[in-house]
Amino acid sequence: MPLTPEQKAEIDRLRAETAPTRRATVPALEDILYEAIPVLDHGFVRVIDYMGDDAAVVQAARVSYGKGTKRVNEDRGLIHYLLRHRHTTPFEMCEIKYHVKLPIFVARQWIRHRTANVNEYSARYSILDNEFYIPAPEHLAAQSTSNRQGRGGVLSGQEAERVLSLLRDDAERAYRGYAEMLNETERGEAIDGERQGLARELARMNLSLNFYTQWYWKTDLHNLLNFLSLRADAHAQYEIRAYAEAMIGTVERWVPMTAEAFRQYRLGGAQLSERGLAVVRRLLAGETVTQEESGMSKREWSELMAVLGRKG
Amino acid sequence: MPLTPEQKAEIDRLRAETAPTRRATVPALEDILYEAIPVLDHGFVRVIDYMGDDAAVVQAARVSYGKGTKRVNEDRGLIHYLLRHRHTTPFEMCEIKYHVKLPIFVARQWIRHRTANVNEYSARYSILDNEFYIPAPEHLAAQSTSNRQGRGGVLSGQEAERVLSLLRDDAERAYRGYAEMLNETERGEAIDGERQGLARELARMNLSLNFYTQWYWKTDLHNLLNFLSLRADAHAQYEIRAYAEAMIGTVERWVPMTAEAFRQYRLGGAQLSERGLAVVRRLLAGETVTQEESGMSKREWSELMAVLGRKG
Amino acid sequence: MPLTPEQKAEIDRLRAETAPTRRATVPALEDILYEAIPVLDHGFVRVIDYMGDDAAVVQAARVSYGKGTKRVNEDRGLIHYLLRHRHTTPFEMCEIKYHVKLPIFVARQWIRHRTANVNEYSARYSILDNEFYIPAPEHLAAQSTSNRQGRGGVLSGQEAERVLSLLRDDAERAYRGYAEMLNETERGEAIDGERQGLARELARMNLSLNFYTQWYWKTDLHNLLNFLSLRADAHAQYEIRAYAEAMIGTVERWVPMTAEAFRQYRLGGAQLSERGLAVVRRLLAGETVTQEESGMSKREWSELMAVLGRKG
Amino acid sequence: MPLTPEQKAEIDRLRAETAPTRRATVPALEDILYEAIPVLDHGFVRVIDYMGDDAAVVQAARVSYGKGTKRVNEDRGLIHYLLRHRHTTPFEMCEIKYHVKLPIFVARQWIRHRTANVNEYSARYSILDNEFYIPAPEHLAAQSTSNRQGRGGVLSGQEAERVLSLLRDDAERAYRGYAEMLNETERGEAIDGERQGLARELARMNLSLNFYTQWYWKTDLHNLLNFLSLRADAHAQYEIRAYAEAMIGTVERWVPMTAEAFRQYRLGGAQLSERGLAVVRRLLAGETVTQEESGMSKREWSELMAVLGRKG
Repeated sequence: MPLTPEQKAEIDRLRAETAPTRRATVPALEDILYEAIPVLDHGFVRVIDYMGDDAAVVQAARVSYGKGTKRVNEDRGLIHYLLRHRHTTPFEMCEIKYHVKLPIFVARQWIRHRTANVNEYSARYSILDNEFYIPAPEHLAAQSTSNRQGRGGVLSGQEAERVLSLLRDDAERAYRGYAEMLNETERGEAIDGERQGLARELARMNLSLNFYTQWYWKTDLHNLLNFLSLRADAHAQYEIRAYAEAMIGTVERWVPMTAEAFRQYRLGGAQLSERGLAVVRRLLAGETVTQEESGMSKREWSELMAVLGRKG
Repeated sequence: MPLTPEQKAEIDRLRAETAPTRRATVPALEDILYEAIPVLDHGFVRVIDYMGDDAAVVQAARVSYGKGTKRVNEDRGLIHYLLRHRHTTPFEMCEIKYHVKLPIFVARQWIRHRTANVNEYSARYSILDNEFYIPAPEHLAAQSTSNRQGRGGVLSGQEAERVLSLLRDDAERAYRGYAEMLNETERGEAIDGERQGLARELARMNLSLNFYTQWYWKTDLHNLLNFLSLRADAHAQYEIRAYAEAMIGTVERWVPMTAEAFRQYRLGGAQLSERGLAVVRRLLAGETVTQEESGMSKREWSELMAVLGRKG
Repeated sequence: MPLTPEQKAEIDRLRAETAPTRRATVPALEDILYEAIPVLDHGFVRVIDYMGDDAAVVQAARVSYGKGTKRVNEDRGLIHYLLRHRHTTPFEMCEIKYHVKLPIFVARQWIRHRTANVNEYSARYSILDNEFYIPAPEHLAAQSTSNRQGRGGVLSGQEAERVLSLLRDDAERAYRGYAEMLNETERGEAIDGERQGLARELARMNLSLNFYTQWYWKTDLHNLLNFLSLRADAHAQYEIRAYAEAMIGTVERWVPMTAEAFRQYRLGGAQLSERGLAVVRRLLAGETVTQEESGMSKREWSELMAVLGRKG
Repeated sequence: MPLTPEQKAEIDRLRAETAPTRRATVPALEDILYEAIPVLDHGFVRVIDYMGDDAAVVQAARVSYGKGTKRVNEDRGLIHYLLRHRHTTPFEMCEIKYHVKLPIFVARQWIRHRTANVNEYSARYSILDNEFYIPAPEHLAAQSTSNRQGRGGVLSGQEAERVLSLLRDDAERAYRGYAEMLNETERGEAIDGERQGLARELARMNLSLNFYTQWYWKTDLHNLLNFLSLRADAHAQYEIRAYAEAMIGTVERWVPMTAEAFRQYRLGGAQLSERGLAVVRRLLAGETVTQEESGMSKREWSELMAVLGRKG
């Protein structure tokens, strides 16, 4: 359970208050505002604030004085057109802010997306909680033998047990060392009056990368979709994908037309190369094409056959 | 008057609608939401949407579960501390969206600020209105004789009259040429059935840089303050400064604590160089210091004396 | 001819000097360094500086100590893999700087690409030359009747003549007005001693959007490829496409492996939507598919058929 | 010693090769190109590539066809003027690329500067070395009692010994766990043929934040100076300051005029607030001013007095 009762109460208080606004408002997203959507064993994603809706995309594309919307069908068609033709700036007119609790190694992948605003909990200033990520047994994957950057089958038996106990023991020991070096209670008092306590900014280095951190992360809809298309992809590491999938759910509530176009043109589509396109045209013309004459590498060829739903 | 009756009605319709929201809401900004604040002869600035408030800055700095606010005095102190010490990321957690109507030469200066989202009215797609900027007589400045990039005194008499009529005549003629080449009514019908009409994307090049364009412009509070500190500065061209000043008024409504800190530490303050600081220390110690021994150039010295309120 | 004899001599002087460097060096790009590649009637593109080469992409992908290159074939394969799988950061490790002379309306499209560094010639500070763009007769296109944002056939006969003379007359008149208001010779002396001269920052607004400006523009290889894929596209306005095509030539000299992969996966390829992919799979399985049952709009269907080289 | 003999030999090979170039070249920076400048116990900074020099800043400010330089004194004056007046774009025309080896907790601070290009060694793909940071005894600081985000005095005696052995033991144990879970030799063979080995992307989470990582980091001169002014500041954590200081040395070799102006206007200068400026003016007029009547908080007042070299 990622939240303390005090945190839960604070969130309930926020959710209980409403105020009238003239801004674009999305009831389906308001319904879950501030609520923590659980991810992994101790993490979460919470929508904290948002600006704009599907109509704001339309309005920006038309640079209009009012809402810019016409009939629902035309708006939907315009949003699909914009996404299909890479007219990205209207989607930048919507903004969303999340509060995320996540393991540090996930945070390190995430932060590579630079077009976002971030405020992270500071372990120079504050003391981190004793919370770390341990994979569920079904996610305890072996190294892939075919892909250096991927997972193979799930570990089982003694090896799985050993890995889980090793991860847990080392994390617990790391936190004990951290706490001992700090020599500080939660109220900032010394545990051992004889010792000064190591500076927080130094002590934190004893923690391992599966400890949880948290941050506020804010980005626009265009960059969010980029992030999601990369991190909800099958090649992304499972742990960050779990966050991306939770966030796609919030996008569907927030901007349903854009979310639909995103599935249609980004998540569900495929990019064909010049050679790939040539192969498709020849196949459609009834020709037989082999990998050798396609000019493609074996790997590329098998990627293409997978996209086309054919055997290599 | 920059708005047509139809536009005014559209804005009134938007302003009449409210909805309940759980998000942070700022009544003083809601009061003017969607309204056009006039700037120059045909331009305006309208706040279209916003995200966050002063408390959101505090909340981000504390990465809290709730509003993060403590007592008003502590929040105010924290905001001042953050701005004073260049802790800029909490200010990035607030976002604002403007609709701006502005002359093209102002737009060209403005767009140099890249950390913003922009959707401009497309003259490839649509036809521009016959509206251009003519300076008011009190802004018809001569070239500065001391500063190659600045204005001197105001033109008067025959020279002023000649400039005004020349600007007006050339703009009107440019628009006539534009309209004739387009050969198109507002409804998209040919004026002269014998002609095809030049492509809009080409015809627009006949218009001069004082014609008005418009855009949606969205940025975060940190980057907005950067923009305003540069463009509300005395060295900025008057025409863009007029927009910056109208926008500072909206910032004061939106985030009054941040606006106060901004005046205190950015607009009203001054940066001293290492040599400038050495001069101040020596003066405070009762020494006499001359430009020659300060190691500063004449220009730098007179800038310093101006900051200190002393005669050069 | 876009360069004066003095400018030409200055460029020749620069080209005559070489110095030894330990940095990655690309002889094919050095061959044309500083040279002006003509674009449109008075414009040009010049490569002024560059950092990195194809091997630097490989090196960054491997975060290696040396050049990171293995055999040519492996490097080529890696570069193709990176581009195919949207691993964009290694391409950001190469940087290029151009000097570009271009009409203002082209500059306004160009500047929408924000992830670049720009220094533009300042018309607040200096006086612009009397040079403006007039389309060649074969580029004098009519407005498209099917696409609101596009060109149709080429204008001819009297209409073409009228447009050309109108563009030329209005530009010349705009410059005369500009010069008169400035009341300044090239040496900064007053033409008419009775007048003060309008400030440069104001006078410039009389010029039309076909006047030439110039800037230094610097970006990394990843963002350059993004720019080129959008601006060398058939949907881009001809005038900016002319610049993009000249720049693709410089990319081919600079990073030939990346340029080849770019043609293969970006320029020559196509993005299929989820529905588009379903259509292709069904066609490959020998089924007949119609637009109606595809779930696609007519426009989208005809785009797909064009990509597949089939009649709609 | 941060480099293996193989790495050292690879660097020597690179340094031995030169090629002629027409680009701007800086011999003082070429002298140290590719060389590892040691930082902390196992880290380093290496300049890998660069673009431009002081003259390129001048050239961009003048948008010239040649080098843009006039006399040395004028160039120096222009660079100082640009930096003093926040004309930042000419400094963006120079670019530098570093290879950095650094502890992960330092990398996490560093990456918060988003306007840079980064390629980090991938622990999803490769196995990290057994190298971790242990502070030198003189940097083993206690938590500050006055500043929640800072260091106090140096730990000594038994407490210091205990901290050092704890950091070392926990890091070693973390690596043993990592290696055991991977079950893999450097050549990719299984250590224990009965086990599959945990996926690299999971095993890495057992490592602590003082383990070393490495990356290629590339940025422009303007953003580099921003980074350095924040990270070479006395308030920055010692460990990142050590990197910033090594990098300032490279900037002094690369662009000596800019480096001098940077020290003059950024590192050595101070920003005064509106109230601070009012205090200085009153003091210079011979008045006595107290904290109470200054309108400043105690903290702000003592910061001001420190800047002015006076007792609070």
